[in-house]
Amino acid sequence: MNEIGIVKRGIARADAQAVAALGEYGVATVHEAMGRSGLMKSYLRPIYAGAKLCGPAVTVLLQPGDNWMLHVAAEQLREGDIVVAACTADNGDGHFGELLATSFRARGAHGLVIDAGVRDVGELTAMRFPVFSRAISARGTVKATLGSVNVPVVCAGTAVNPGDVVIGDDDGVVVVPAALAPKVAQAAAARMANEASKRERLAAGELGLDMYAMREPLAKAGLRYVD
Amino acid sequence: MNEIGIVKRGIARADAQAVAALGEYGVATVHEAMGRSGLMKSYLRPIYAGAKLCGPAVTVLLQPGDNWMLHVAAEQLREGDIVVAACTADNGDGHFGELLATSFRARGAHGLVIDAGVRDVGELTAMRFPVFSRAISARGTVKATLGSVNVPVVCAGTAVNPGDVVIGDDDGVVVVPAALAPKVAQAAAARMANEASKRERLAAGELGLDMYAMREPLAKAGLRYVD
Amino acid sequence: MNEIGIVKRGIARADAQAVAALGEYGVATVHEAMGRSGLMKSYLRPIYAGAKLCGPAVTVLLQPGDNWMLHVAAEQLREGDIVVAACTADNGDGHFGELLATSFRARGAHGLVIDAGVRDVGELTAMRFPVFSRAISARGTVKATLGSVNVPVVCAGTAVNPGDVVIGDDDGVVVVPAALAPKVAQAAAARMANEASKRERLAAGELGLDMYAMREPLAKAGLRYVD
Amino acid sequence: MNEIGIVKRGIARADAQAVAALGEYGVATVHEAMGRSGLMKSYLRPIYAGAKLCGPAVTVLLQPGDNWMLHVAAEQLREGDIVVAACTADNGDGHFGELLATSFRARGAHGLVIDAGVRDVGELTAMRFPVFSRAISARGTVKATLGSVNVPVVCAGTAVNPGDVVIGDDDGVVVVPAALAPKVAQAAAARMANEASKRERLAAGELGLDMYAMREPLAKAGLRYVD
Amino acid sequence: MNEIGIVKRGIARADAQAVAALGEYGVATVHEAMGRSGLMKSYLRPIYAGAKLCGPAVTVLLQPGDNWMLHVAAEQLREGDIVVAACTADNGDGHFGELLATSFRARGAHGLVIDAGVRDVGELTAMRFPVFSRAISARGTVKATLGSVNVPVVCAGTAVNPGDVVIGDDDGVVVVPAALAPKVAQAAAARMANEASKRERLAAGELGLDMYAMREPLAKAGLRYVD
Amino acid sequence: MNEIGIVKRGIARADAQAVAALGEYGVATVHEAMGRSGLMKSYLRPIYAGAKLCGPAVTVLLQPGDNWMLHVAAEQLREGDIVVAACTADNGDGHFGELLATSFRARGAHGLVIDAGVRDVGELTAMRFPVFSRAISARGTVKATLGSVNVPVVCAGTAVNPGDVVIGDDDGVVVVPAALAPKVAQAAAARMANEASKRERLAAGELGLDMYAMREPLAKAGLRYVD
Repeated sequence: MNEIGIVKRGIARADAQAVAALGEYGVATVHEAMGRSGLMKSYLRPIYAGAKLCGPAVTVLLQPGDNWMLHVAAEQLREGDIVVAACTADNGDGHFGELLATSFRARGAHGLVIDAGVRDVGELTAMRFPVFSRAISARGTVKATLGSVNVPVVCAGTAVNPGDVVIGDDDGVVVVPAALAPKVAQAAAARMANEASKRERLAAGELGLDMYAMREPLAKAGLRYVD
Repeated sequence: MNEIGIVKRGIARADAQAVAALGEYGVATVHEAMGRSGLMKSYLRPIYAGAKLCGPAVTVLLQPGDNWMLHVAAEQLREGDIVVAACTADNGDGHFGELLATSFRARGAHGLVIDAGVRDVGELTAMRFPVFSRAISARGTVKATLGSVNVPVVCAGTAVNPGDVVIGDDDGVVVVPAALAPKVAQAAAARMANEASKRERLAAGELGLDMYAMREPLAKAGLRYVD
Repeated sequence: MNEIGIVKRGIARADAQAVAALGEYGVATVHEAMGRSGLMKSYLRPIYAGAKLCGPAVTVLLQPGDNWMLHVAAEQLREGDIVVAACTADNGDGHFGELLATSFRARGAHGLVIDAGVRDVGELTAMRFPVFSRAISARGTVKATLGSVNVPVVCAGTAVNPGDVVIGDDDGVVVVPAALAPKVAQAAAARMANEASKRERLAAGELGLDMYAMREPLAKAGLRYVD
Repeated sequence: MNEIGIVKRGIARADAQAVAALGEYGVATVHEAMGRSGLMKSYLRPIYAGAKLCGPAVTVLLQPGDNWMLHVAAEQLREGDIVVAACTADNGDGHFGELLATSFRARGAHGLVIDAGVRDVGELTAMRFPVFSRAISARGTVKATLGSVNVPVVCAGTAVNPGDVVIGDDDGVVVVPAALAPKVAQAAAARMANEASKRERLAAGELGLDMYAMREPLAKAGLRYVD
Repeated sequence: MNEIGIVKRGIARADAQAVAALGEYGVATVHEAMGRSGLMKSYLRPIYAGAKLCGPAVTVLLQPGDNWMLHVAAEQLREGDIVVAACTADNGDGHFGELLATSFRARGAHGLVIDAGVRDVGELTAMRFPVFSRAISARGTVKATLGSVNVPVVCAGTAVNPGDVVIGDDDGVVVVPAALAPKVAQAAAARMANEASKRERLAAGELGLDMYAMREPLAKAGLRYVD
Repeated sequence: MNEIGIVKRGIARADAQAVAALGEYGVATVHEAMGRSGLMKSYLRPIYAGAKLCGPAVTVLLQPGDNWMLHVAAEQLREGDIVVAACTADNGDGHFGELLATSFRARGAHGLVIDAGVRDVGELTAMRFPVFSRAISARGTVKATLGSVNVPVVCAGTAVNPGDVVIGDDDGVVVVPAALAPKVAQAAAARMANEASKRERLAAGELGLDMYAMREPLAKAGLRYVD
């Protein structure tokens, strides 16, 4: 059940150092480092190729076709925050555009993840303001019904608490619970280090079959080679 | 009910000055200036980022998997026209490609909006011929069944009459009835003027909450701040 | 019925000269040259604009959420091959990423067509490794259940045999049976030659109505011009 | 462009005799009798198998997530009317339920066609109140923003004017312009008469190939029989 | 982030009396009584018309294409429980069928809500075992990867904790947090009482316009009647 | 590549006894008995609950929006055959209705599986003529372009050869290659025998955890019970 009509002011953001560290890794790496967990649904796409974001979440619960709460959220932003906007119903209208992006940036936001539609994507791309959305639509919204700011939300199928770390790139969006951020950052670092040597060996022509010692388990599973 | 087998020759195009003026504004602005009306469904997407078009509509009613009427429409084009092609059934086949674009451009067309599929998108992108379509597919079409040209159509959920102004950009496609074009252009101009000063204030850090005087209505609606 | 647990080693690849020739034509042209046949479903999209591939298919049958067989396939690659990966169920997880692309390229692959999801699309784009997929998702996969390599598969609605020619560009993906490759290459060449002169005439303003002699059949079909 | 904030009271309903006649035929027959035209998109489905409706349209233009105008429409109903509700945006919320059905029935309505969602489908089924909708959802709506009643609308891809005849059955929904209703009813009657004798011949084992004299055109088109 | 590999045994189920009371109301009524909140996404549909369920949730987190955890959940069931199965990825395979339904019923379950596919729907319908699912598919699953039982999950877009009340009928599925169950049951009762008298007045021909006193706010909003 | 313009007359139907045996089992059982293989995509749905079919396939390759080849196929039918109609492009138009069903039944067909749309579903339901389709639409089709009869096709993602056994029920549609029919029938029988005793034990309250000896592998995989 969603709490409606609430703005929580003092939220606990994830450790800044952990946020910075997570920003170095891609979404796929962080998702793996969390035990293959935390991904938002893949219908969220960046509005321009190469868009990237990482920061603690200021959460918003929107009503469909209504962007009032985005204005309310602007006041709660701190430098580096990511706005994560869920919606009480499936909706693709354009809840966010250039003016709000101007405001969000002025107040410190480094990007937006929204389980709804956005517009002015030409202008947003020119501004290089990173946005991950479920739709692009010029259709405007009203400012008539309350939602909430900084309550727990479900955004694109994933539970998000205010202060959790949100990371987005061309592969999608992943959420790291604030308490786990340092541990996940460490695990991601280890994974990356490990990948560098693998990349070299594969580039030299070594087969994954050998590098990962797959031949025996494949044979055990019954794989047969025929000519 | 669609009229089949008709080509209307002498159509009344929207006022040229109004068309030129509307071309200065984006789709979102024009849609708002019309009272949030006139948008085609958001499944119509530009085939390349940054595609833009604006002009009076030459309408086409296609049969699915058949592009005969696009050839018929070519003869009815004047400099600056936009071809708006509806289809009597949902279909994603490639009704339009490089050769037709070459012909359309030679006859004056400034773009295509089509509630069906297109192909040769690499070549169309290289030509910078703006196309908004519901699908991309290499699947070819036949030339066997009559449709119509310059009859009223429903394209991507929106009624379009020949001569109406059609505007497309990264946010989608909007239709302005010919008779309303001057009035809508004026309203859009007013809206734009108004936005410039807002943008500046928001960029300076002023909150929408204050600029739009939202605090009182929010409080009245029951918004509560908690710590 | 899919054969599970088989790797066929010695496959007959389409004639190299025919493959090279087909690589000169776009997907739409080849599809037309085959009598409007052989297209994969249009939900397969390139991960970056301008991606292109052409080569004989090394086929893979994947289990959903499992990329084991892609590693097995790497060993069967020869210079110029295209990996064509079907899946026993609809699935959008990220079965392929940068490391596998590095391995595939080192072993000679010129691209991937996959009826499932991929990840690391930023890195794959930077590598210019052409991939056509049904989805982009950071979600990782396991290596636990057997599929097959170089068995006949149905990929994106189209039957593919190992060694068939697979061609992909911005318009989609088409498959040419190995035995037909030389004949189709010839037909495509003829079609291209024919198009060049048409393009010129259309660019000069000639109407398709006249160039294709459509006026008479249109009149016979009952087309009426009104003012 | 949709007219907002208008209720038209005195509408011209299609000829009652023609409406009654059309009610005798199924949707497929009427669609064919109109030259394969007038169908709404097939995503509109009856909420229970066997639901059927036929009558002149009282049109409604809804705002998404807002059912205010359905209450306004109730006052404009006459015995036998069908409410046809379009929506200014794609929306699947439950705009209509048992209470409104009770009101509509009391005021004479014989059914509802709605390009949005409905709820209370268990109760509506028990009432045998025929409804064709795009979705079923318990999600409630507000009564806050104006739409219109008895203006021209586009419902499920088809233009509808108040007073047009709307017919629905298990195959979907078709619209007959009021002025054409008598002519279409006649054409449908002729078609039905014709079908009865065909049904008998086919039931007796005669082939469509012979009854429709298809063998010659098939041979001309190049059909080859092989053993 | 989902907890993997956990089975929580002692869960706090919602008050039994409140559960029984909520079972008397439909999903739409409960959703309204909670302030229009708690609905699962409307893609969850009953496998047979008229399926209904109400009870405290035993939650399951499934891996896609793997139904191992449903067997683990069976041991945690008490009389009257509803199994609520979420999945770590979008998947429509048949995770549940007649044998598991037999087991669940023997252990006390009164139904299943599953954000994945099921099979044996003919048999399940004959058993009158109520199931709400996102898909129907004969495709079988494996028992290979751990999920969890009785952890918090997101099912069809809605957060569910073990012990929460889950209610399903033809209109969809709604979740009531355990702590709020008594209060929501009361609110639903009040709503129902209120509806009975409204139904009578509407059935007698009174307009919602008058009963809800809408004429004045409509006029204020600018509604115009024309002839 | 699809062969166009061919009717193959003498096809080898699967062994009649095996067909009869397979008809005794449901789709899920047969799919499992084939090693989880052979399922068509789950978007194919029966037009009425409880529809069932089983028989050797007479295959048809349709052009979208064209049902000419269904008439050609009628002549090739023998008692007990199932018509399996694929389409060269995605299409939901109504290619089949009551008249064709009358003809098919008179010529021996026991049902239709069609990767396209059908109409007259009220009448087809009354006739109890089992049909599995991807869509229901009143939209009519033409008889203008050749396809084929009794060539190999890909229907709903699965390769089908003429004479293969096709089985459909509420869970979907599965295809058994003719040569494997006896072996699969045997495997299905064994599976069914095995299920009967399992059903009894589960109904008596025994847990799948114990019956399938899952406790040890679950513990090995790391499952932890907490209170």
